[in-house]
Amino acid sequence: MIKAGIIGSTGYAGAELVRLLLNHPDAEIVWFGSRTYADQPYAEVYGNFFELVDARCLDDNLEELAAAADVVFTATPQGYCASKMSEELLSRTKVIDLSADFRIKDAARYEKWYGIHHPSPEFLGEAVYGLPERNREKLKGARLVANPGCFPTCSILAIAPMLKGGFIDPQSVIIDAKSGTTGAGRGAKVANLYCEVNETVKAYGVTTHRHTPEIEDQLGEAAEEELLVQFTPHLIPMERGILVTAYASLKAGVTEEEIREVYEETYRDEPFVRVLPKGKVPETRWVKGSNYADVAFMTDARTGRVIMMGAIDNIGKGAAGQAVQNMNLLFGSDETAGLKSIPMPF
Amino acid sequence: MIKAGIIGSTGYAGAELVRLLLNHPDAEIVWFGSRTYADQPYAEVYGNFFELVDARCLDDNLEELAAAADVVFTATPQGYCASKMSEELLSRTKVIDLSADFRIKDAARYEKWYGIHHPSPEFLGEAVYGLPERNREKLKGARLVANPGCFPTCSILAIAPMLKGGFIDPQSVIIDAKSGTTGAGRGAKVANLYCEVNETVKAYGVTTHRHTPEIEDQLGEAAEEELLVQFTPHLIPMERGILVTAYASLKAGVTEEEIREVYEETYRDEPFVRVLPKGKVPETRWVKGSNYADVAFMTDARTGRVIMMGAIDNIGKGAAGQAVQNMNLLFGSDETAGLKSIPMPF
Amino acid sequence: MIKAGIIGSTGYAGAELVRLLLNHPDAEIVWFGSRTYADQPYAEVYGNFFELVDARCLDDNLEELAAAADVVFTATPQGYCASKMSEELLSRTKVIDLSADFRIKDAARYEKWYGIHHPSPEFLGEAVYGLPERNREKLKGARLVANPGCFPTCSILAIAPMLKGGFIDPQSVIIDAKSGTTGAGRGAKVANLYCEVNETVKAYGVTTHRHTPEIEDQLGEAAEEELLVQFTPHLIPMERGILVTAYASLKAGVTEEEIREVYEETYRDEPFVRVLPKGKVPETRWVKGSNYADVAFMTDARTGRVIMMGAIDNIGKGAAGQAVQNMNLLFGSDETAGLKSIPMPF
Amino acid sequence: MIKAGIIGSTGYAGAELVRLLLNHPDAEIVWFGSRTYADQPYAEVYGNFFELVDARCLDDNLEELAAAADVVFTATPQGYCASKMSEELLSRTKVIDLSADFRIKDAARYEKWYGIHHPSPEFLGEAVYGLPERNREKLKGARLVANPGCFPTCSILAIAPMLKGGFIDPQSVIIDAKSGTTGAGRGAKVANLYCEVNETVKAYGVTTHRHTPEIEDQLGEAAEEELLVQFTPHLIPMERGILVTAYASLKAGVTEEEIREVYEETYRDEPFVRVLPKGKVPETRWVKGSNYADVAFMTDARTGRVIMMGAIDNIGKGAAGQAVQNMNLLFGSDETAGLKSIPMPF
Repeated sequence: MIKAGIIGSTGYAGAELVRLLLNHPDAEIVWFGSRTYADQPYAEVYGNFFELVDARCLDDNLEELAAAADVVFTATPQGYCASKMSEELLSRTKVIDLSADFRIKDAARYEKWYGIHHPSPEFLGEAVYGLPERNREKLKGARLVANPGCFPTCSILAIAPMLKGGFIDPQSVIIDAKSGTTGAGRGAKVANLYCEVNETVKAYGVTTHRHTPEIEDQLGEAAEEELLVQFTPHLIPMERGILVTAYASLKAGVTEEEIREVYEETYRDEPFVRVLPKGKVPETRWVKGSNYADVAFMTDARTGRVIMMGAIDNIGKGAAGQAVQNMNLLFGSDETAGLKSIPMPF
Repeated sequence: MIKAGIIGSTGYAGAELVRLLLNHPDAEIVWFGSRTYADQPYAEVYGNFFELVDARCLDDNLEELAAAADVVFTATPQGYCASKMSEELLSRTKVIDLSADFRIKDAARYEKWYGIHHPSPEFLGEAVYGLPERNREKLKGARLVANPGCFPTCSILAIAPMLKGGFIDPQSVIIDAKSGTTGAGRGAKVANLYCEVNETVKAYGVTTHRHTPEIEDQLGEAAEEELLVQFTPHLIPMERGILVTAYASLKAGVTEEEIREVYEETYRDEPFVRVLPKGKVPETRWVKGSNYADVAFMTDARTGRVIMMGAIDNIGKGAAGQAVQNMNLLFGSDETAGLKSIPMPF
Repeated sequence: MIKAGIIGSTGYAGAELVRLLLNHPDAEIVWFGSRTYADQPYAEVYGNFFELVDARCLDDNLEELAAAADVVFTATPQGYCASKMSEELLSRTKVIDLSADFRIKDAARYEKWYGIHHPSPEFLGEAVYGLPERNREKLKGARLVANPGCFPTCSILAIAPMLKGGFIDPQSVIIDAKSGTTGAGRGAKVANLYCEVNETVKAYGVTTHRHTPEIEDQLGEAAEEELLVQFTPHLIPMERGILVTAYASLKAGVTEEEIREVYEETYRDEPFVRVLPKGKVPETRWVKGSNYADVAFMTDARTGRVIMMGAIDNIGKGAAGQAVQNMNLLFGSDETAGLKSIPMPF
Repeated sequence: MIKAGIIGSTGYAGAELVRLLLNHPDAEIVWFGSRTYADQPYAEVYGNFFELVDARCLDDNLEELAAAADVVFTATPQGYCASKMSEELLSRTKVIDLSADFRIKDAARYEKWYGIHHPSPEFLGEAVYGLPERNREKLKGARLVANPGCFPTCSILAIAPMLKGGFIDPQSVIIDAKSGTTGAGRGAKVANLYCEVNETVKAYGVTTHRHTPEIEDQLGEAAEEELLVQFTPHLIPMERGILVTAYASLKAGVTEEEIREVYEETYRDEPFVRVLPKGKVPETRWVKGSNYADVAFMTDARTGRVIMMGAIDNIGKGAAGQAVQNMNLLFGSDETAGLKSIPMPF
């Protein structure tokens, strides 16, 4: 059994990790970390775990945790994981970091977009960007995984094949994303109250959202050139789910058939990416509660553009589900272990 | 493998049956019945099953279905199952009826509340009311199961121990229930449109709801006397879940401790009923997507009453989950097989 | 023009007061009080008022406010208004208190249910309980109004005629209420986050909710006897609205026609109470955004009970709308001034 | 008093027209048209109008209606209004058509995008596109108004000044829109059921949405050149509101200040368009229930693009509110008459 510890287990991504790992055939949770709820029974914070989890929340103690766990998930604010990173830590346990600390290889770029100092840039080289569809082999031997952001996961899966195939102008990519409210976290803020989020929609982080450089880095790799992306997320009144609608200018002469071939080849053997048939558009409900990413594209001969669409569960493939998929790779489990639950659309 | 057929597989209870059975270790679905979507790929009706279900929907053909399936689930309108019932059918396949046709033992009573003729009352005696917590042994050998209604399931689990213990006046029971909108079905009616259901609440079926006699029959059994129940359901803007809040007059001298003892003893070995600790109230989110029922009670010394509360997922323990639990009993599988998914509160 | 000041103008009831008073023909707002947002432009807190309100929020200064305003609305936590009450204050301005401080005439009873000391019980006698349908004449000359609670308003309007008519056993009243989330206030609490409230329902304050004594006092007056009420509110995933479903035992021989006559006579001349025709049930959407209360009842010959139902907008007739109605009475305006907006159901 | 008739008064736009006109100082409704609910009391269809509207729904009878009404609102499916259009009709009453029949001046273009024959193209020249912010003077003398689509209204108000100022490449405009579910109408379709719309998001009409040519025509006028627009709407789980997020390539050297000047000048005297201050983004809740349109823009020096945003209530400024604004212009009322209600954000 893989012994797993979770720091930040009472946030939404943390709670989803718990839900997934409890049903995982090869893993068990040995540490329910939560500074806010330290010493409280975990099942009092999340009543769904009543009679299923007896443990109490534990305050931070990375020493002790590293001794107890084969893998530590850090579902923590930016900066936490990097501040604790050390060779000693990685010699004792593997780390899957759900924050952004190790996603961007260039520390200066990280510091510019996140506005905080990176205390351990020496581990940026070792950290593997945890998108199995792009880095599966590297993940198998990794000690430190940078679990991707929710918007980047959805954007990259939807757009990368288009760039890989050379079908679009790499500088023309515009991503308009819509996110459920779990994405805003479980902090007690007025802006996230029911009556502030329900029955409304707004953009946020316009021109400045911190997932932008992460998307650019990964899409740039796919395109084999540096590129700038226009990325605008929106908060909508639902709990789970991200929908990405992306726009780009098609190169002359590209056909829908060529594109489809590349998408289908790219994802043919992927257990969690589904390329929708012609004419279908992704809906977040069809992936809700699961680790699936649904992707689709439509060309517009009239305008010369292509519209690329992707849907994931932001807490699933966009966070906890992907983290478990990465854990499976790190430890040689079946990649789909613990991730077989079928989407629950209603 | 248990071969299962579903008539009405494109309704909400039917789709949940599909979701549960696809992950069931001992069962496989051999028939996706749907008159409305006959010949269409099932996964086009519910996109969550894309790449998971290849089958097309099949029109009614009970002959053929009975030959193919070890068990037939009828997730159909009232009257359908009873109209098809025959000794020959039951000699060829087991039937778990999710409609009300065989729930009420007295055909005249059924006809009065449902306003339709019962065409096969001769099977009322054989049919077992499929609440495992009350009829487990009978279910093991059954051919025909009357799967309970969603409101009755929640009401009976919350209230029956109180009657069994003789703690309340049986004639004083008032049940105020709140249901999510999956309970209204998937029919294309104006009343169920998003903009008609969202941001509002109303009672319906006041004094006349057809789950009333079913609740009365079962609670009457628990009380060992005939009783009348006041039952009022409400439609609230959510998808899944039923919350029951029930009121009754305590008999003199009854203590909270005595009551708790009976509840805990009643449900100690039940895999799907959780008695909440003192001071906790059920919330539907803690059981969402699962087969759990959470029950609790609070006495009010000031008024001399007790408030009993229960929460279930109306599509889970209130319909498809319970049907699978019954299937497990009929076929000798582990009672929890296919039902181990943990509630998904957000 | 009536000069109005609002303490607590950035809470939900406060913001609704602003919305209503801005369209009031005889009133103007001279003071937007808010400790939390002091010095910030009011329209930055609530963007709907952009270009409509130029004022900045003002910190507490009751001296200055009393000098500036003809009437002060206190949309504040329990205890605030009572702590500031004085003869001098009332000699300078009228006060409409939206908190519970002056609703319960017996200070000891207030202190027991609210768990706080009442610092100015000497004003309890003068304060008029601001339900125009019961106290219209007294309100006309009042200096201090105790604006009713949201649940009491809805409960009393739905039930009082039944008691006045002597149709039910006064001790048998059970009230099951469902409230939108604005009722929980705008405080930054995890429990009120979108992802904690959406898609779930729960009871709260079971046996202990502080609106209980207020309901008992008012219904006791209608019944002309002291009575105990069982009151259980529920939080449901919507923003505005309260639905009350109340149960009571009918006295022998009472007919539906007699009851209807009393309800219709009671509310015939009321501008804001609508008695629904036989067979109709209230829905909160039909009163949303307005000052209406819809009431209805159904007798159940089978059980010998009557079900009484009421729907209001908890922020309208349940708080700010009623406060404006009271202001109109205090100052001799048309009682419906500023309150003519039609319910907005979607 | 302006005598107004409504064909299609039981749809969502129709019901909003009723709500607005009932509070209009200069208008009264003389005809509540509804084929579906003919002969039923209007207030039984929409309970909010109980005791406010006594009339019954009337089946189609344009002859009689034209005789009774000074203005007819057609809130009807595409094709209806054009099929009834005649010189005689316009000689007897004014017509404000909420459908698309007269919005596109080129009949062939209409027929191509809408897939239906245009039976009365001879009136396309006379019809005035009813966006007061662009056609106020023409509207004053009009007999036939083509009330704009919801997406075009929001898009044009947000983008036109940018084109008028010559700040962007006209061919680069990409519009990503998010709409509430009232936009899908009140037809009884499975796709619009609560449990199909709630907790999900999807694009629809990708590359083919019929508001595209309308947007292109109007933006083309502003740009003084023909242009192609990429337009993608999304359905999100809310009732009212449209948010438009639009992207375009800035011309070299354009400054944020120049742009702001043009926006502010364009809308300075407009009663219903609010240009948000730098750094603010529109949210649909700030315009909900009102006739306001909030617009904003942000330049992105990094990418060389500008993001333009707009929010309206799709049923207000996007349909019924704008229709009333047009009626006011046609009849010389104060343009804001009946439209003064303040947005209701919660």
